[in-house]
Amino acid sequence: MTSATTSPIPPTIEWIGGDTLAGAGDDAHIELIDQRLLPGELVVVEARTIAALCEYISTLAVRGAPALGAAGAMGVALAATLGLDLEEAGATIKATRPTAVNLAWGVDKALAADDPVAEAVHLAVDDVARNQALGAHGATLVPEGGRVLTHCNAGALACVGWGTALGVIRSAHDAGRRPSVWVDETRPLLQGARLTSWELDRLGIPCTLVPDVMSGSLMASGDVDLVVVGADRIAANGDVANKIGTYNVAVLAHHHGIPFYVAAPKSTFDDQTPDGASIPIELRDQDEVLELAGVRIAPATVQAQNRAFDVTPAALVTAYITEDGVQRR
Amino acid sequence: MTSATTSPIPPTIEWIGGDTLAGAGDDAHIELIDQRLLPGELVVVEARTIAALCEYISTLAVRGAPALGAAGAMGVALAATLGLDLEEAGATIKATRPTAVNLAWGVDKALAADDPVAEAVHLAVDDVARNQALGAHGATLVPEGGRVLTHCNAGALACVGWGTALGVIRSAHDAGRRPSVWVDETRPLLQGARLTSWELDRLGIPCTLVPDVMSGSLMASGDVDLVVVGADRIAANGDVANKIGTYNVAVLAHHHGIPFYVAAPKSTFDDQTPDGASIPIELRDQDEVLELAGVRIAPATVQAQNRAFDVTPAALVTAYITEDGVQRR
Repeated sequence: MTSATTSPIPPTIEWIGGDTLAGAGDDAHIELIDQRLLPGELVVVEARTIAALCEYISTLAVRGAPALGAAGAMGVALAATLGLDLEEAGATIKATRPTAVNLAWGVDKALAADDPVAEAVHLAVDDVARNQALGAHGATLVPEGGRVLTHCNAGALACVGWGTALGVIRSAHDAGRRPSVWVDETRPLLQGARLTSWELDRLGIPCTLVPDVMSGSLMASGDVDLVVVGADRIAANGDVANKIGTYNVAVLAHHHGIPFYVAAPKSTFDDQTPDGASIPIELRDQDEVLELAGVRIAPATVQAQNRAFDVTPAALVTAYITEDGVQRR
Repeated sequence: MTSATTSPIPPTIEWIGGDTLAGAGDDAHIELIDQRLLPGELVVVEARTIAALCEYISTLAVRGAPALGAAGAMGVALAATLGLDLEEAGATIKATRPTAVNLAWGVDKALAADDPVAEAVHLAVDDVARNQALGAHGATLVPEGGRVLTHCNAGALACVGWGTALGVIRSAHDAGRRPSVWVDETRPLLQGARLTSWELDRLGIPCTLVPDVMSGSLMASGDVDLVVVGADRIAANGDVANKIGTYNVAVLAHHHGIPFYVAAPKSTFDDQTPDGASIPIELRDQDEVLELAGVRIAPATVQAQNRAFDVTPAALVTAYITEDGVQRR
């Protein structure tokens, strides 16, 4: 259905069935990669009910802002093929991750469309197309043999396909620039270790996993040419909210004079939020820090703090990479 | 035997027996905390043979530069009470961690002494006394209610007792300055989560565990008043080798105008090494990054890099805290 289906990484989420409500067919459903099982197993699961889809969203089987947008739209499309109340189904889906703006955005797009199935299919195709345009623009910033450092997962798995930050690297790779990647493991949930290194490995792009604490040492030893990261929200003044630890990397890159690029589709730019200080920072469960693979790593009486995001001031961003091109500051 | 025995944290390593070779007694042996079992269990184990001691050292049951110095000297003392060849025993002990300078230093001190038992006991008492002097000097740098960020474990468990960076915090606590501590978890081996938070918890000093990626966010939100870390080696020009990730914290502190202190006894200053570039950086096994609690966190075909230390240039150090006082740059 999308161009991503021909890639080594199957679509993160996909509508299975006809491309319109009238033509969807009795077997219409949603398929998605169960990211909880990566990197151990690549398993594509089916969502045939709204309850099943909501369970996948709330347990992070599917995650990443652009991917959640598609999930929201496809959920409304599924409700339509099942003959359910669309408003009710949409509200149920939105409630699974109330802070995920893209999820609500996708639901609302499908609700507002004449044909929710056609709209969901369109959103998914459009996501990949925008990421590929973004990647092509960003690839021009990657020097021959460039050594890129990235943080968290802003790859195909965070979108419907292709990826944003990893989309730039992938486009540079396809253009013959032979990039290699330092992958920050990204504590506490290890999206870098679990997802980013998995994607790069499947794409045949050379990568090396490193603890987050090594980024400064790598820059000091001259082993990093550029940094590319994604974004969860970009404020009107250019401040960037992204996975916790992004700001550390930005300050280190600034200290070493290394370019720091933010790759995100235009839908991530939020003109309603004036600056980074206006972006609420989600505090997540401290058990994500206190436990690893189910094993407690700190004394039982010790508390942890777990900020999910940080804010990188616009002054530390060398350029923003979008589907429209490269916007330098 | 040492003043640390009256503390909530038993001595990291202790000579059990008379204080001289002649008076050591038939039951003389070494006791040490098995740090491999922390924070789950506090278990003190006995070393009654050189082979047992070497096993504890090589598997990191006992670690930390000052603690290894005492272990080396006590090992020679143990060999003396057992009637073994001291030179041979010393060489065996040194070989367990060939890069640990303090281990060889402790062995050599005991070998050169007339009474290796008396020398080992002296080194242990002296370690605690120097750390307490260092702590008292450093405590003057901690403001009332000061919020301190530290990285890795430079506490009692890295020494015979009291600690260096944590010794400063402990002395400030005892002086009524009510410090609180942000504990970097310190990937990959989690010495902050496992050891530092355990020590602070037992001492009743308020602490909060955080992923290493959160240090920048904490500084940006105004939640850090000062940083105190230990050191593995300080070069003649003041460059500091310490646990990987220390440099990230130093750059972030510099960016935010937050004082960055290095606490270490004078024995850590190495006049034979001109600068940080001359300090070899140990590359450790990549499995320490690729696995967590025995669980593989990355695809089987992905490689990792695992630098054990980084170098913080002297220009980023606000002051050095030693047993002689505070040396500002």
